[in-house]
Amino acid sequence: MTEANQDRESAPPPDETEDVFGVNDELVGAVEEALEAGWPEEVGKLVMDLHAADKADLVESLGHDERLRLVDILGAGFDPEVLPHLDAAVREEVLDRLGPERLARLLSALDSDDAVDVFEDLDETFQHRILTDLPLAYRHILKESLTFPEDSAGRLMQREMVVIPSAWTLGETIDYMRAADDLPDDFYDLYIVNPKHQPIGKIPLSRVLRTRRPVRLTEIMESDLKAMPVELDQEEVAHMFRQYGLVSAPVVDDGGRLIGVITVDDVVHIIEEEAEEDALKLAGVTETDLYNAALDTTRARLPWLAVNLVTAILASAVIGLFEATIEQIVALAVLMPIVASMGGNAGTQTVTVAVRAIAMKDLTESTTRRFIGKELFVGAANGVLFAALAGGVAWLWFGSPKIAVVIAAAMIVNMVVAGLSGTLIPLALDRVNIDPAIASSVFLTTITDVVGFFAFLGLAAVFLL
Amino acid sequence: MTEANQDRESAPPPDETEDVFGVNDELVGAVEEALEAGWPEEVGKLVMDLHAADKADLVESLGHDERLRLVDILGAGFDPEVLPHLDAAVREEVLDRLGPERLARLLSALDSDDAVDVFEDLDETFQHRILTDLPLAYRHILKESLTFPEDSAGRLMQREMVVIPSAWTLGETIDYMRAADDLPDDFYDLYIVNPKHQPIGKIPLSRVLRTRRPVRLTEIMESDLKAMPVELDQEEVAHMFRQYGLVSAPVVDDGGRLIGVITVDDVVHIIEEEAEEDALKLAGVTETDLYNAALDTTRARLPWLAVNLVTAILASAVIGLFEATIEQIVALAVLMPIVASMGGNAGTQTVTVAVRAIAMKDLTESTTRRFIGKELFVGAANGVLFAALAGGVAWLWFGSPKIAVVIAAAMIVNMVVAGLSGTLIPLALDRVNIDPAIASSVFLTTITDVVGFFAFLGLAAVFLL
Repeated sequence: MTEANQDRESAPPPDETEDVFGVNDELVGAVEEALEAGWPEEVGKLVMDLHAADKADLVESLGHDERLRLVDILGAGFDPEVLPHLDAAVREEVLDRLGPERLARLLSALDSDDAVDVFEDLDETFQHRILTDLPLAYRHILKESLTFPEDSAGRLMQREMVVIPSAWTLGETIDYMRAADDLPDDFYDLYIVNPKHQPIGKIPLSRVLRTRRPVRLTEIMESDLKAMPVELDQEEVAHMFRQYGLVSAPVVDDGGRLIGVITVDDVVHIIEEEAEEDALKLAGVTETDLYNAALDTTRARLPWLAVNLVTAILASAVIGLFEATIEQIVALAVLMPIVASMGGNAGTQTVTVAVRAIAMKDLTESTTRRFIGKELFVGAANGVLFAALAGGVAWLWFGSPKIAVVIAAAMIVNMVVAGLSGTLIPLALDRVNIDPAIASSVFLTTITDVVGFFAFLGLAAVFLL
Repeated sequence: MTEANQDRESAPPPDETEDVFGVNDELVGAVEEALEAGWPEEVGKLVMDLHAADKADLVESLGHDERLRLVDILGAGFDPEVLPHLDAAVREEVLDRLGPERLARLLSALDSDDAVDVFEDLDETFQHRILTDLPLAYRHILKESLTFPEDSAGRLMQREMVVIPSAWTLGETIDYMRAADDLPDDFYDLYIVNPKHQPIGKIPLSRVLRTRRPVRLTEIMESDLKAMPVELDQEEVAHMFRQYGLVSAPVVDDGGRLIGVITVDDVVHIIEEEAEEDALKLAGVTETDLYNAALDTTRARLPWLAVNLVTAILASAVIGLFEATIEQIVALAVLMPIVASMGGNAGTQTVTVAVRAIAMKDLTESTTRRFIGKELFVGAANGVLFAALAGGVAWLWFGSPKIAVVIAAAMIVNMVVAGLSGTLIPLALDRVNIDPAIASSVFLTTITDVVGFFAFLGLAAVFLL
């Protein structure tokens, strides 16, 4: 090998890390400019070499009009792999612009799992029009996929896989794979099936490569398959992949027959979505709505705010019970939000830990008992500490030791209640099959507000008047 | 093949889904019973066939004393693969019980990335004692790994990988792999290096298996490598894997030389942790503290509550400015939490979306502009709606149209401010390199409380007295 040759083969210098992420403001700016100037060749040149995921980011970064112009310019050369990477709201715009005929052509170029992912979000008339344009085998796959429950293993799996009869040797298998022209692009495991087409084992490709030709597959296969029933919820699928470090897993029908394979790249998105969903739901947002229209977002956030208005009025009603007390000691009105707010924050900390623990299936009977006990302790310990602090502040501010004692006592009560309800509310909701992420914080802040105001004003009414 | 044979090879019936998850209350109960009764054989039998991740769950589910008894019973047969799966707090207990000699033996049985993961959390004296007991090569790897920044690609990578010189053919490569006895257990890609040991391409194993022996590796390799600098933060690593659907990626040193490989199973945990961390931080919890001691948890949650106390007092001080006003119209004290609470909730929705968008690198210059504009619109739209509702309630409750107008006006002001600060606060924090997840909500609720109370009581002081 000559020196020149060596240089050509050199890796890029590692300090080019700004290159690590495909889409930056500069690129977006350049594309916007080229679109406005109406230079289709320039746009094509800028976009061509990007990874599909980066192209999707670029499409998302553009404004509505520019986005459609980009779709028009790319025209027949639109990269089908971009579609599964697009955010739902943006994808809808793009698909509408592409139209059913072009979309049918794009879909049939995708792996079946990606095609299903795009197809399942379309409205029914659009779906119908596309189906007629698709090759027969593909039409069947897409139609069948819709019979599986949403967010199930059946929707996630791809049909492309490498299935080998159990009687074969490794040499026969390798010869078959070299000759076959319908293998999936990427696969990580071979699946071994019995004559009923039920999976009985899998062999990671790295093991295939280390094994000699005469060896029978059944001798080197792993029989601990972690097969997923086709109706299994995607959250469970993700849990299995995470728990067992899987790279692919077989999907089986009611008869235990192998009908598809789920690969880790699809699950990475689920794992992220599920963890993200909890964070969003705790705040009363149902999905990442960054790309949704403003009016849709306004509407989507409405129910949560409405629930919050009701609970805020409930808390106000508690204050209303003590109007006479407040009239005599206005300091109470000044101090009362402190008690409620500290309870709300302590409770939110507990709720967040509880919701994640439930999602991660960390709570068995014995860990649950210990968890509740611990949160009671934490609530009481921090309650006593902050009672002292808040009492001190109240004393200095209003010069009344009695008010200090009342706010301290109310603080302890509210923070213990926060610790207890922060654990019990999500556990109870989970028990009755309500998603604890979405409902816990409403219940929690209602309780900490009501208890906070009631304890503080009630104790004041009894001891200060 | 006989019928009997076929039946033995059958897959388990798919309705055995309770079997899908390894550890349940029943198993934990059985192990606890066997531990209390002092039946080591029974314990061994129950635990033996579990996957390492399930064993780790079991260890986490037990109480402190039972956990140590289990470690003692398993003794020399302790499965090293369990260690990386254990929660940090639980792992510390287990490692203390195992002691340095046994731990050194267990570590050298692990892949280098898992060994580093366990090793880096130990305290220094413990690390030192273990190093002397380790084989030389391993000692070097562990020591060097600590020179890379925490949470960097260098800590995540494994040293076990398959590296092939660029001149080889596929046939030579396969012969080498069949003969080699130091290949990693699982690998997904071959890495091709130039004479300087810089990676110039990779070949997925599925492509190796579809290719004929005489083909040269450089003809079929992918040269878009997505190489990660050894110091790259794990958050960036996770982003690359997710964005490009990677299964493995090369890690390079300052000279661009290949020094390790990161595989997707390690990244799945990072992706989850990062998404989870955001959720926890928004609530003021720094980590999932389910297994931490109660006192540690109390201490860890303290700073957040202290900050909250300060902001709550600040909000109270604003109320204090209007003591005279409240004294004359007590209804104001009853209604004021509604305005503050609605602003806080609307702002939290916006903050959560913003924090996720920043973490996912979704915010380019143009999407940021659109995002801020949209949140202002959403705040104003929902502000007007809930102003009407809150005003109606106030009118009915206190029979005063003037109070209704004041609360409505304050509500609109506060919800627009919430939308604006819900976007600007996380963006500004990110700009000055403060983690927006951990600090945004304190700033936000301080602003919505202060503005809520000030707008409502201030307008009341001007228009109602």
